[in-house]
Amino acid sequence: MPDTIIKVDLSQSPYDNDMIHNRWHPDIPMVAKVKPGDEFIVETYDWTGGFIKNNNDASDVRDIDLSIVHFLSGPIEVEGAEPGDLLVVDILDVGAFPHNSWGFNGFFSKKNGGGFLTDYFPQAQKSIWDISGMFTSSRHVPGVSFAGLIHPGLIGCLPDARLLEKWNTRENALIAENPTRVPPLANPPFPSTAHMGRLKGDAKAAAAATGARTVPPREHGGNCDIKDLSRGARVYFPVYVKGAGLSMGDLHFSQGDGEITFCGAIEMPGWLHLRANVLKDGMAKYGIKNPIFKPSPIKPNYTDYLIFEGISVDDAGKQYYLDVNVAYQQACLNAIEYLKKFGYSGAQAYAILGTAPVQGHISGVVDIPNSCATLWLPTEIFDFDINPSNAGPTKSVPSGIDVPLAPDL
Amino acid sequence: MPDTIIKVDLSQSPYDNDMIHNRWHPDIPMVAKVKPGDEFIVETYDWTGGFIKNNNDASDVRDIDLSIVHFLSGPIEVEGAEPGDLLVVDILDVGAFPHNSWGFNGFFSKKNGGGFLTDYFPQAQKSIWDISGMFTSSRHVPGVSFAGLIHPGLIGCLPDARLLEKWNTRENALIAENPTRVPPLANPPFPSTAHMGRLKGDAKAAAAATGARTVPPREHGGNCDIKDLSRGARVYFPVYVKGAGLSMGDLHFSQGDGEITFCGAIEMPGWLHLRANVLKDGMAKYGIKNPIFKPSPIKPNYTDYLIFEGISVDDAGKQYYLDVNVAYQQACLNAIEYLKKFGYSGAQAYAILGTAPVQGHISGVVDIPNSCATLWLPTEIFDFDINPSNAGPTKSVPSGIDVPLAPDL
Amino acid sequence: MPDTIIKVDLSQSPYDNDMIHNRWHPDIPMVAKVKPGDEFIVETYDWTGGFIKNNNDASDVRDIDLSIVHFLSGPIEVEGAEPGDLLVVDILDVGAFPHNSWGFNGFFSKKNGGGFLTDYFPQAQKSIWDISGMFTSSRHVPGVSFAGLIHPGLIGCLPDARLLEKWNTRENALIAENPTRVPPLANPPFPSTAHMGRLKGDAKAAAAATGARTVPPREHGGNCDIKDLSRGARVYFPVYVKGAGLSMGDLHFSQGDGEITFCGAIEMPGWLHLRANVLKDGMAKYGIKNPIFKPSPIKPNYTDYLIFEGISVDDAGKQYYLDVNVAYQQACLNAIEYLKKFGYSGAQAYAILGTAPVQGHISGVVDIPNSCATLWLPTEIFDFDINPSNAGPTKSVPSGIDVPLAPDL
Amino acid sequence: MPDTIIKVDLSQSPYDNDMIHNRWHPDIPMVAKVKPGDEFIVETYDWTGGFIKNNNDASDVRDIDLSIVHFLSGPIEVEGAEPGDLLVVDILDVGAFPHNSWGFNGFFSKKNGGGFLTDYFPQAQKSIWDISGMFTSSRHVPGVSFAGLIHPGLIGCLPDARLLEKWNTRENALIAENPTRVPPLANPPFPSTAHMGRLKGDAKAAAAATGARTVPPREHGGNCDIKDLSRGARVYFPVYVKGAGLSMGDLHFSQGDGEITFCGAIEMPGWLHLRANVLKDGMAKYGIKNPIFKPSPIKPNYTDYLIFEGISVDDAGKQYYLDVNVAYQQACLNAIEYLKKFGYSGAQAYAILGTAPVQGHISGVVDIPNSCATLWLPTEIFDFDINPSNAGPTKSVPSGIDVPLAPDL
Repeated sequence: MPDTIIKVDLSQSPYDNDMIHNRWHPDIPMVAKVKPGDEFIVETYDWTGGFIKNNNDASDVRDIDLSIVHFLSGPIEVEGAEPGDLLVVDILDVGAFPHNSWGFNGFFSKKNGGGFLTDYFPQAQKSIWDISGMFTSSRHVPGVSFAGLIHPGLIGCLPDARLLEKWNTRENALIAENPTRVPPLANPPFPSTAHMGRLKGDAKAAAAATGARTVPPREHGGNCDIKDLSRGARVYFPVYVKGAGLSMGDLHFSQGDGEITFCGAIEMPGWLHLRANVLKDGMAKYGIKNPIFKPSPIKPNYTDYLIFEGISVDDAGKQYYLDVNVAYQQACLNAIEYLKKFGYSGAQAYAILGTAPVQGHISGVVDIPNSCATLWLPTEIFDFDINPSNAGPTKSVPSGIDVPLAPDL
Repeated sequence: MPDTIIKVDLSQSPYDNDMIHNRWHPDIPMVAKVKPGDEFIVETYDWTGGFIKNNNDASDVRDIDLSIVHFLSGPIEVEGAEPGDLLVVDILDVGAFPHNSWGFNGFFSKKNGGGFLTDYFPQAQKSIWDISGMFTSSRHVPGVSFAGLIHPGLIGCLPDARLLEKWNTRENALIAENPTRVPPLANPPFPSTAHMGRLKGDAKAAAAATGARTVPPREHGGNCDIKDLSRGARVYFPVYVKGAGLSMGDLHFSQGDGEITFCGAIEMPGWLHLRANVLKDGMAKYGIKNPIFKPSPIKPNYTDYLIFEGISVDDAGKQYYLDVNVAYQQACLNAIEYLKKFGYSGAQAYAILGTAPVQGHISGVVDIPNSCATLWLPTEIFDFDINPSNAGPTKSVPSGIDVPLAPDL
Repeated sequence: MPDTIIKVDLSQSPYDNDMIHNRWHPDIPMVAKVKPGDEFIVETYDWTGGFIKNNNDASDVRDIDLSIVHFLSGPIEVEGAEPGDLLVVDILDVGAFPHNSWGFNGFFSKKNGGGFLTDYFPQAQKSIWDISGMFTSSRHVPGVSFAGLIHPGLIGCLPDARLLEKWNTRENALIAENPTRVPPLANPPFPSTAHMGRLKGDAKAAAAATGARTVPPREHGGNCDIKDLSRGARVYFPVYVKGAGLSMGDLHFSQGDGEITFCGAIEMPGWLHLRANVLKDGMAKYGIKNPIFKPSPIKPNYTDYLIFEGISVDDAGKQYYLDVNVAYQQACLNAIEYLKKFGYSGAQAYAILGTAPVQGHISGVVDIPNSCATLWLPTEIFDFDINPSNAGPTKSVPSGIDVPLAPDL
Repeated sequence: MPDTIIKVDLSQSPYDNDMIHNRWHPDIPMVAKVKPGDEFIVETYDWTGGFIKNNNDASDVRDIDLSIVHFLSGPIEVEGAEPGDLLVVDILDVGAFPHNSWGFNGFFSKKNGGGFLTDYFPQAQKSIWDISGMFTSSRHVPGVSFAGLIHPGLIGCLPDARLLEKWNTRENALIAENPTRVPPLANPPFPSTAHMGRLKGDAKAAAAATGARTVPPREHGGNCDIKDLSRGARVYFPVYVKGAGLSMGDLHFSQGDGEITFCGAIEMPGWLHLRANVLKDGMAKYGIKNPIFKPSPIKPNYTDYLIFEGISVDDAGKQYYLDVNVAYQQACLNAIEYLKKFGYSGAQAYAILGTAPVQGHISGVVDIPNSCATLWLPTEIFDFDINPSNAGPTKSVPSGIDVPLAPDL
């Protein structure tokens, strides 16, 4: 049984735990050290640090201050890792805490973050998912249960100063294109809610002033929200600072490709069992810019799918040029319309696409002007038969149950 | 053994075969009729009608007039199908012709169509792939062979007049935004190379004037280039005209998600063994706008992948806002750089991504400002080990072999 | 398109085709020659040489003289192959003849060969299976259809004289234990129906006198009836004679583990597309006694199973000691009883287990005195839901249809 | 988080825990009660109750008194379950104890239990397997690691008096055929080491006198050692007594088909997370004699195999009649010979076949006189390439390491 090198107390604010941070900055001090080949356990908060509760009221999803996310555990120093190396991380296992066997999924209000389909679901909604061993189901979304494809939504190594500068420069340039947009085009550094781990005083203030927000995935990986970077996977991370500085958080019990609901997957606190090794000079040897990984040999094996196509023409009939986002939105909307025929509300269907192991494929990207994207919905996760038949769909979902909504104030 | 209801003679021009057409229009006469439940065979040309040859010279890929594509077999009338129904098509099998067991993959010149990575591969190149039973390999791309995920790149039913009008309106509006762009934003009707099947004289001229080009996927399906819509799949197509009018072509022996090379997949002529049934009033019953389908139970089962991430920041460091196209381009470029370390040229690596059953996943689409896309490269298709190791990559690909290139004139 | 080096005419008796043989003997002359790396096509009869007809009368299954089987195509000489080598055979594809797209499954009378459950199904019965592209279904067994796991039931190289002698010695010793048993313990050489290919006159008579029957699998492979040795597989065969002498036949469109009905799988004539290479001195290098193989990357991917257990206690309650045969029989009988609850006759259920890609696992072999075997029945091959439910089974199979039976005379 | 209804203390003898028993008898009192639909946790000892230690000395495997096994947790009463029902058990998860993350595999001496290949490995040997999250590896068997297919080797409901009587009658009849055989043909009741749970005094003595040993699988399931009855599976157990009386134990971190080494799998203590429901009158509704089950959607997904054939002729050349045991033994021996070419000792190879998720298929059972069995060895579990190549095998396994052996005294 390996050591737990970072612990969290869910009853404590993550701001009071100095092994946690919520910005990326090279000056954040290492909080633990491991040797290559060591196994170790890391505990994490959920991405909001416990803000979202297990109840039937979505007002927490509506009211959250998103500048506080994501609460990450780390950084961890790996002995011998140097800039230019690859950090080889074996995700030996990931799990929920036994005493906290539930997670949440939500849609943010369009005024506070939104989501992939925010124009169709503009208000805050929340569903709670109970975890039963390897499976999950929700009291808010009946008729569906599935095995967890558990993974960290966010994991990566500390940037060095040069990389951080690059991030800030390009993201600020984007923001400058439309600084008052809601939701914003990107999030600039925001010191007032920054948690810089063990940095204190002026050093903290200085780092917080430029510390990168954790929302976007970047060269180092970070908030990739890749559902298949799951327990059993091996990941090769670029190293930018001496000791690597591996941090992680934002655990998901399950998620669909795209994490389309933004709040997003089945979010939970929990633990990771890891092993790290160093592949010397791996970035140059293999021409690596972004992390690469190998999927797990052990993950849910759903093979029967109903596949929905979408093209880059929106609901209003507007034609886009090779826009995969629009195509995938349309595929998702097509799936939602389909599921509604079986009795689901739109919000329930949206929640399923956000949480279940749906696949989103970039199917065609060259046939001007339309991209084609496909949304793969596993049929085996439903308690009833969702395949088309001559008899037409049967209303199989009990009415009177829905995903709680908190109206904008 | 079912009847072959449409035959092609590869030594004859497709323009001389009146069971072929290369535009979408409701007036194109049906050329064959089947009953629900019937099995039947349809032969098709390759998408270019035989323009691309099995040789080591890419000038045909450079010189092709793309207004001639795609040569489709049909339309086929299905008895009893009416607007609003779903046409349930079982793709019972698809194959190459035994006497023509090869296919081609190419990149178009940026001046003539381009492709997903045309800025990196701006000139015409071509690789030839030999088909050995269920497998393929190429004399231009050594060290790789894989099982075919055979599928029609293009299949769908005739639009009615209203749908056709909608297509023309929205695509012309897009073209009008930048009418002189190279490559163009979309392709308008183009009568001079139109093949309208059995339409003749004035009727043909009238239809050709508005007949939609076949390049983009649209509501009816059409040129979706979905690799998993393969032999063994069941597809539910919207029906717009009496008798459905099912047409198809653009067979691919194999393709990666995205068909990124545009010319594109391993292109070949061949045959499809089909069965069609009618699901009455299926569009309304199931809320269907675009086709849906179920994948085949029998397709290549590669499970060990090396997965490349890409984010929506381009090579020049420019930051895009949630742009999956840019993210997938970056993932593809990352994979190409990786493969070059083993001795492949960039063009060879690009050809592999276009032809092999790589997966392209929309991994994260909500983490502003960066989308994250992943490119899944099956490791089992290579003759050598492409996994990272401490020893670093070994040059495993013989030098002196490359994908033929025809310089722009 | 490779050459077809052995052709068969289904309207001709296999005895009149000198590229066919039905015994194993080193003196049978090679009928074709290939070089290492060559691709080639081999056509084969069905195992009975056309004796079983596509009709609703099982009298042919009852009346067949089993001393005529199996009609094999070959032997094929592979240049450079020598005793001690491994012949590496890529099964690039296998298929039915387009003009003969059906196969048969049968149970022999207990008086004429029997089968794995002959005590429960003692009389001759036959079902006909239609082949629709990659799929099959039967007019005698409604409610079930599945993708073909096509394979040669019988393939291997010629034995040398020493190996042949060993076979005859040990099998004759077994027969001697109970020479009058019905069915027999084994089949000795039987010259009167021997087809020795191009051997003629005295040479033929001499070889026929000792030529081994083709029924059992032996060291060289032969009639292994392994369903997964299918199209796309690579097999390593021991070589005993100069030139290897590869022969094959007994094509199956599909079969369950065990080929329990004996007549057996979905039997058909057809063709194989092959490539052979030589691994010099491979038997010693790898310690090979029997063939080894790698499964195909492309085969039916059914993943949802209902699994039946059986233990080595028979119906009468008799306790056997670690007998996997009895355990597997019991698992099969358990599955048959289960399927009868949905309206199948016992014979229909037995035919499904013989033809569909069921798995038979040796689950426990050490827990004295009971072996445990499991029969894995894919649920996805049925048109209706065969899973247990509180509501109990629904009779989903139309009555009035059954597997034709020909009573013993 | 569900209640843990049965706890074990690994530092305590299982004989001192009255929620444990090691015989089957209807009079063993229920120790816990659950309602249909409840989730609950059950802890178990390893099958030997802690007798085998984590060290490099196999004398414990040599010296164990096998009359003490298996230590089972239970019986558990399920409210409302009655004879004739099916108990529907969802195995929601199974795991090792965090503080005890290792397991053992062993071969018994031929004088004390033996194993499937005891004639080839007649003395006691033991390997220790470390558990690292979802994976395992052994200091005694280098070069191999794999994901755990965790499962209870033994699970089932209490027999009623009639069924128990039947077991004793038929097993005693078998023993009577050769009462002095070593190893014995079966194990009769053996009161002196019986642990009858909460039964005390005369009642205990009476039950112990006829309580069935736990080694063999029987109608109720019991010690089936089916590797795929794993976490995520749903099992339907016959119910014989009011309340069902579900007991379980003998957890395995991983096992190959057949559990050929007998001591056997990777044996460990641990916990199960379960949910039970009742399918009323299910035995008659579905014609159930033995348990049936559905496999897990989440289990190791190894797809690349090297497959070894075996036929029912033993090493000495003796011909058996359709004997799957002999065929599977030969397939196992063939695999062992193959692995030895890469540097493994025979014992290491045998340990791999016993612990890794190898498949054992009953491939042909009708081709007199030879059965054909296949042993499927996943290639992906090895650190090096075990596929055949022209270059021949490379010694990839370090020498000087082996599976500890304790010579017979």
